[in-house]
Amino acid sequence: MSSTAGQVIKCKAAVAWEAGKPLVIEEVEVAPPQAGEVRLKILFTSLCHTDVYFWEAKGQTPLFPRIFGHEAGGIVESVGEGVTHLKPGDKALPVFTGECGECPHCKSEESNMCNLLRINTDRGVMINDNKSRFLIKGQPVHHFVGTSTFSEYTVVHAGCVAKINPDAPLDKVCILSCGICTGLGATVNVAKPKPGSSVAIFGLGAVGLAAAEGARISGASRIIGVDLVSSRFELAKKFGVNEFVNPKDHDKPVQQVIAEMTNGGVDRAVECTGSIQAMISAFECVHDGWGVAVLVGVPSKDDAFKTHPMNLLNERTLKGTFYGNYKPRTDLPNVVEKYMKGELELEKFITHTVPFSEINKAFDLMLKGESIRCIIKMEE
Amino acid sequence: MSSTAGQVIKCKAAVAWEAGKPLVIEEVEVAPPQAGEVRLKILFTSLCHTDVYFWEAKGQTPLFPRIFGHEAGGIVESVGEGVTHLKPGDKALPVFTGECGECPHCKSEESNMCNLLRINTDRGVMINDNKSRFLIKGQPVHHFVGTSTFSEYTVVHAGCVAKINPDAPLDKVCILSCGICTGLGATVNVAKPKPGSSVAIFGLGAVGLAAAEGARISGASRIIGVDLVSSRFELAKKFGVNEFVNPKDHDKPVQQVIAEMTNGGVDRAVECTGSIQAMISAFECVHDGWGVAVLVGVPSKDDAFKTHPMNLLNERTLKGTFYGNYKPRTDLPNVVEKYMKGELELEKFITHTVPFSEINKAFDLMLKGESIRCIIKMEE
Repeated sequence: MSSTAGQVIKCKAAVAWEAGKPLVIEEVEVAPPQAGEVRLKILFTSLCHTDVYFWEAKGQTPLFPRIFGHEAGGIVESVGEGVTHLKPGDKALPVFTGECGECPHCKSEESNMCNLLRINTDRGVMINDNKSRFLIKGQPVHHFVGTSTFSEYTVVHAGCVAKINPDAPLDKVCILSCGICTGLGATVNVAKPKPGSSVAIFGLGAVGLAAAEGARISGASRIIGVDLVSSRFELAKKFGVNEFVNPKDHDKPVQQVIAEMTNGGVDRAVECTGSIQAMISAFECVHDGWGVAVLVGVPSKDDAFKTHPMNLLNERTLKGTFYGNYKPRTDLPNVVEKYMKGELELEKFITHTVPFSEINKAFDLMLKGESIRCIIKMEE
Repeated sequence: MSSTAGQVIKCKAAVAWEAGKPLVIEEVEVAPPQAGEVRLKILFTSLCHTDVYFWEAKGQTPLFPRIFGHEAGGIVESVGEGVTHLKPGDKALPVFTGECGECPHCKSEESNMCNLLRINTDRGVMINDNKSRFLIKGQPVHHFVGTSTFSEYTVVHAGCVAKINPDAPLDKVCILSCGICTGLGATVNVAKPKPGSSVAIFGLGAVGLAAAEGARISGASRIIGVDLVSSRFELAKKFGVNEFVNPKDHDKPVQQVIAEMTNGGVDRAVECTGSIQAMISAFECVHDGWGVAVLVGVPSKDDAFKTHPMNLLNERTLKGTFYGNYKPRTDLPNVVEKYMKGELELEKFITHTVPFSEINKAFDLMLKGESIRCIIKMEE
């Protein structure tokens, strides 16, 4: 056991005191892990749109002060009672959703939507005791999606921690905690394009590029990027995107443009924007008889997906996915292995790196649309 | 070759002269099959809702005089040039949709929506020459979906004819030409419930009962029938339906009723009514994480399928099917074998039998909702 086990750890964390205001690096006290929990020393974290979305808190319940962050890699510092699959020193990735191993979802081969540990963006506490493990001057600070990785140490439910290959470079694989697996899994686990097939990717942000990477790995021969910003095509080529459609360049609906390009429709489509119109287009651009459309992007709460049912009866399939259908503990170690073997390329997603003290730069870069992934180094 | 090969055959056919008016048994002349066609001697035919629907011609282009009929079994009388997979004397089932074997759909393992021979309800002629093979006193009579089995002899594209086991009883297996395979395949080929799972069937007509039979064969343990007519539950029990919900008996939406009965939703749902509201309910009553809903019923042309996209993102799947995803020539012989081995029960679908001269009785029985399948015997 490390000398800090069972002790409160004082360390630095980037605290969001108010919606949309720059984070402030503060000294926080991190309590030891309780039963079924793990305390992690975070070495690298990266910024995802979801952090920014809840930090802006437009339309969400504001929950402040809060420690954001959910894409990260670290080392297990200590474990709480009953934790058997992790031990101090293990290299690990925390995940915003978990795997209790006991519920019907965990027991199903098809689902990763664990009843106990499924993402809950409104909860700012640990599920054991409905309390925070973070204190600033005796006052609790809210957690974020059970991970709060913008802190040198954090406490996470053990079901949300994947033990990975000890040789894996955490400054690279940390991005697998959220967006990259979400897009990659949407293609490889759900859309499952066959070698030589055609795939349309709606939205060329980090998730869409990861979906394209999945299509490339699957051997798709036509990977058609769809985005409202044409300049994104250039970068997307690195991820296998070899054709591009900007819906703004056409008078007809983009699904019709794609159907005409592909003799009736693409074999697979993956929607990574969350725009309801893009969801409908993604579904309607797949080929009848065998086309599969997969929805990834998170819609607004009043959206309605609407299509003529004949589009379904003509043997199209419409599916959605959550975290690329990966089970965090079971599947994430294998995704890391794919990277280690060179099958999955992660470097090209990482456009920037900043020290922890400059974490607000990562927010600026994302808000300006300049970064895909910006890595935040905790040890400077 | 039979002595009639190459000759015009004079025989009896039930001709629909006007929308909604009783059929009239007439003497017709049936031309020999052209290249790629087959002339069948029909021994048994049965009546399907689709015949009634186009005979009533409410909302469809009226095409009269016409010879309806598309569920049938017969014997190959003669074949046209180039037909190699059938020969005179073969026992065969004609099908309203076909399998050319050459198009991308036929070459795909997933699709049965042949480009060349896909159902076309507006076409009243053969595709070879855009002409009818039926004449009454020198005047052509329209075909119906390429089959027109309400005739002692009919000409069908060879791609729409499945050669089956010579020992199969045509008075039973003739019902596999349409409705029964449509429902059965929706479950066994598309929904694919696992043994022990729960399946909701919307609509307990012939297609819905066939979908239930598919669930029974698949080993589903809970088969929940949903119908607006409660008396249908009794008969449905023979098809494995062991629970029943009448949406009229509840104040809340039926999807909510089913979710409460099944701890969050059924594993699979199959929609066999064509009502848009039932389609939406069928989708929304499947379990998140792994639920699959399959649409079978044909909607009205102005319907819109509408749901909140989160219902998809929570890992539900929505699919449609056409003719149960069976490829007519490739798969139908195997379905006949399932019947021959006693795995699939067909007798329970057959509630009535009438001689050809009383074919209008079959229409009356269906319009009154008294029959599931009424077999029409061509030889009296």
